[in-house]
Amino acid sequence: MSETEADTPSTPAEEIAAALLRPDADRPAILAGRQHADIATALESLPTEAALPALRALDVHRQAQVFGYLRRKAQARLGAALARDERAAIVGAMSHDERADLYRSLNAKGQEALLGVLAQAERDDLHRLAAWPEGTVGAIMTSDYAFLWPNMTAPEAMEALRRQAVDTETVYTALVASGDYRLLGVVSLRDLLLAGRKTRVEAIMDRDPVTIRADADQEEAARLIRRYDLLVLPVVDEAGRMVGIVTHDDALDVVAEEATEDALRGASVGALDADADVRDTPLTILYRARVGWLVLLVFGSMFSGAGLAAFEDTIAAHMSLLFFLPLLIGSGGNAGAQSATLTVRALATGDVRPADYGRMMAREVAVAVALGLTMAVAIGIAGLLRADASVLAVVAISMTLIVLIGSLLGLTLPFVLERAGLDPATASGPLVTSLCDVTGVLIYFGIATLLLPM
Amino acid sequence: MSETEADTPSTPAEEIAAALLRPDADRPAILAGRQHADIATALESLPTEAALPALRALDVHRQAQVFGYLRRKAQARLGAALARDERAAIVGAMSHDERADLYRSLNAKGQEALLGVLAQAERDDLHRLAAWPEGTVGAIMTSDYAFLWPNMTAPEAMEALRRQAVDTETVYTALVASGDYRLLGVVSLRDLLLAGRKTRVEAIMDRDPVTIRADADQEEAARLIRRYDLLVLPVVDEAGRMVGIVTHDDALDVVAEEATEDALRGASVGALDADADVRDTPLTILYRARVGWLVLLVFGSMFSGAGLAAFEDTIAAHMSLLFFLPLLIGSGGNAGAQSATLTVRALATGDVRPADYGRMMAREVAVAVALGLTMAVAIGIAGLLRADASVLAVVAISMTLIVLIGSLLGLTLPFVLERAGLDPATASGPLVTSLCDVTGVLIYFGIATLLLPM
Repeated sequence: MSETEADTPSTPAEEIAAALLRPDADRPAILAGRQHADIATALESLPTEAALPALRALDVHRQAQVFGYLRRKAQARLGAALARDERAAIVGAMSHDERADLYRSLNAKGQEALLGVLAQAERDDLHRLAAWPEGTVGAIMTSDYAFLWPNMTAPEAMEALRRQAVDTETVYTALVASGDYRLLGVVSLRDLLLAGRKTRVEAIMDRDPVTIRADADQEEAARLIRRYDLLVLPVVDEAGRMVGIVTHDDALDVVAEEATEDALRGASVGALDADADVRDTPLTILYRARVGWLVLLVFGSMFSGAGLAAFEDTIAAHMSLLFFLPLLIGSGGNAGAQSATLTVRALATGDVRPADYGRMMAREVAVAVALGLTMAVAIGIAGLLRADASVLAVVAISMTLIVLIGSLLGLTLPFVLERAGLDPATASGPLVTSLCDVTGVLIYFGIATLLLPM
Repeated sequence: MSETEADTPSTPAEEIAAALLRPDADRPAILAGRQHADIATALESLPTEAALPALRALDVHRQAQVFGYLRRKAQARLGAALARDERAAIVGAMSHDERADLYRSLNAKGQEALLGVLAQAERDDLHRLAAWPEGTVGAIMTSDYAFLWPNMTAPEAMEALRRQAVDTETVYTALVASGDYRLLGVVSLRDLLLAGRKTRVEAIMDRDPVTIRADADQEEAARLIRRYDLLVLPVVDEAGRMVGIVTHDDALDVVAEEATEDALRGASVGALDADADVRDTPLTILYRARVGWLVLLVFGSMFSGAGLAAFEDTIAAHMSLLFFLPLLIGSGGNAGAQSATLTVRALATGDVRPADYGRMMAREVAVAVALGLTMAVAIGIAGLLRADASVLAVVAISMTLIVLIGSLLGLTLPFVLERAGLDPATASGPLVTSLCDVTGVLIYFGIATLLLPM
């Protein structure tokens, strides 16, 4: 497929990198008007001695933006090559959540160095943000939100936002606070723009905004942002005091990363770094992410093997049964994977809650019986030339039961995992397939042993 | 699991619905300050005779917002119950993309009625938006964007945005247009707020903004919005003229819906309406979405069955081979599902491009050989008590090969589907498992027939 390399157009980042590598490169001209994300990707691909002068050609605000887009490895590499005061300026200008991400990715020595360049208030802020464990709202929120007092007039509020614009993540939604920093409401810049000159913030703010706690799951934050089309989701503590905001772009990252994570879990691949690119992930890490489940499932499959061995006499007496074995256990596994995936996604999007189990079960029985009967007819047609009527009867009955039980297993497993506090996504692939294999073998040869003459 | 129903807190929508059902309900007071999405969910759960007066208690802008959040079925039900002039006012106040969604969901008679209540310019706009097929950028973009001229000063631009605020999707990012409506750049309200009074829009606008074409894939739009942390992605035609915008909340919907779609495709479930809730989807639709692939895969599995039948003599001579069959074909399928899922997600997020196939292949061989050898050792241990040395040797060699070939199939299949213009996500589940089943049977019994005495 090497010819595809020629017809893939070069990306903006590749253009920037190529331009920066020319001996007479006019770095400010090359970087002017370029997107920060593209500059970051270009710098990642360049050797440090070419990347460093390019980074230095930007003003400190753009440096901080570009630095925030770098992957961790490149942050570490370029960060180490910068002078101490340059590093201090960049870290000082970074948004608070990206600074906390950087801090989390450093070793103890690097963390100490980073704290060393910050003022005391910023240090405390960083400690607070960095203390939240991965997966919580606290780990993705930022503390550089815009805020207003309720008695400001619309022009006063606009002026306040203008002054906060450089140092905050966004001024399009501002938190409105009481004197003790409890969240009173939320106001949008749009509504301020539309308000009369004498209108006060408290008159136009949303007094009952959607909020979340810092210890909540980050998926819940993404769900709320998606449901309510929010730009900003305020984060409050148990006393209702403001502690941060989660923004729309965080939600997009969460949804995309969780989709990847769920897909990998579903395929029984272990956790991979969400920041990592599968093209660069060390092979040993890929190996480790995959081998655990594979070996575990081997021992799981032993039950299927033992099941087969237990029915050795039945098989020896009716070798034509073997012909249908892959079809039957395959169909059970496929039906199970379908139900499990439908359930996992419905739980992930919030369409279905744990309390819906009973209702889902009743619906699944109806669909699965219809599917099983259809499959019994299909396999009956497929097997006409291969087997006699009694074997076909065994196969048709088994198919109906196997598809039914596989579907119910697929529906139930995600609920059980959710209940146990585990990720339901683990259920949707090889795990449910392996379970269906065992039950398929037992049902098929159990029915055959009962119904066929020995 | 019925006890979970008691400890599930009632949602805001359930609170609203319950309050509206009380005989003395003060509707304006109940709905004041409530989120539009929650009101919509509440109205969906109420009978039309209770929902209609509630909807009427809102002003037309809130009515339009709530209407936009309703699912299609509820839109149709409440829309039909409204008087003609009420319907006209709501449709007139809806955002252009949601109006186009509504139009697309109607039958010919409904579409005609909807067009009848609109002015000519709006009708043309609706026709243009509704003509884009599902899955394209055109189908999710909206034409009610804010726009400015390049020679406006910052205060003039702010005043223009204030005037546009009511009728546009967002004023936080405005398109800057030439006299012939070509896109010259993009300017943020933040930068206007920070600009001096005499600064002109052209001096602060981003002259090289990220844009997309209306016929591009909506996933590409979501990828760009995520990569560049955009609020607004401008859509232009082949001459560079503005045709619309895609906003951050559209991107979030696309990523979430595509994740569900990819997960279902991966599990060989056919297309379900992205708008649908799996709890309410008619059972016949669920049945149809699942039965096609299941039956197709049955006929696929016949090759595995035929493979088994072809080796009947080998099996009859060495029944202990059967014990290892589920383990071997299961492991091949699992390894294949792992690689396929890793590849599908990497292609979906854009981390891997079709041109990377060669490099990915080399990496996969290295990982898969290591996995295969590990699995050979695992199955060797698992089988010690079950079989003699010659069968174990066959099993170990087969395991290494089956895991290797399964992994390579899993890696290759998504690339092949992408090349053929199909969705690579189809590869990640039962399809790859079924392929691995067939190759597993052939490899295992092929090697057994070669190496074992008959």
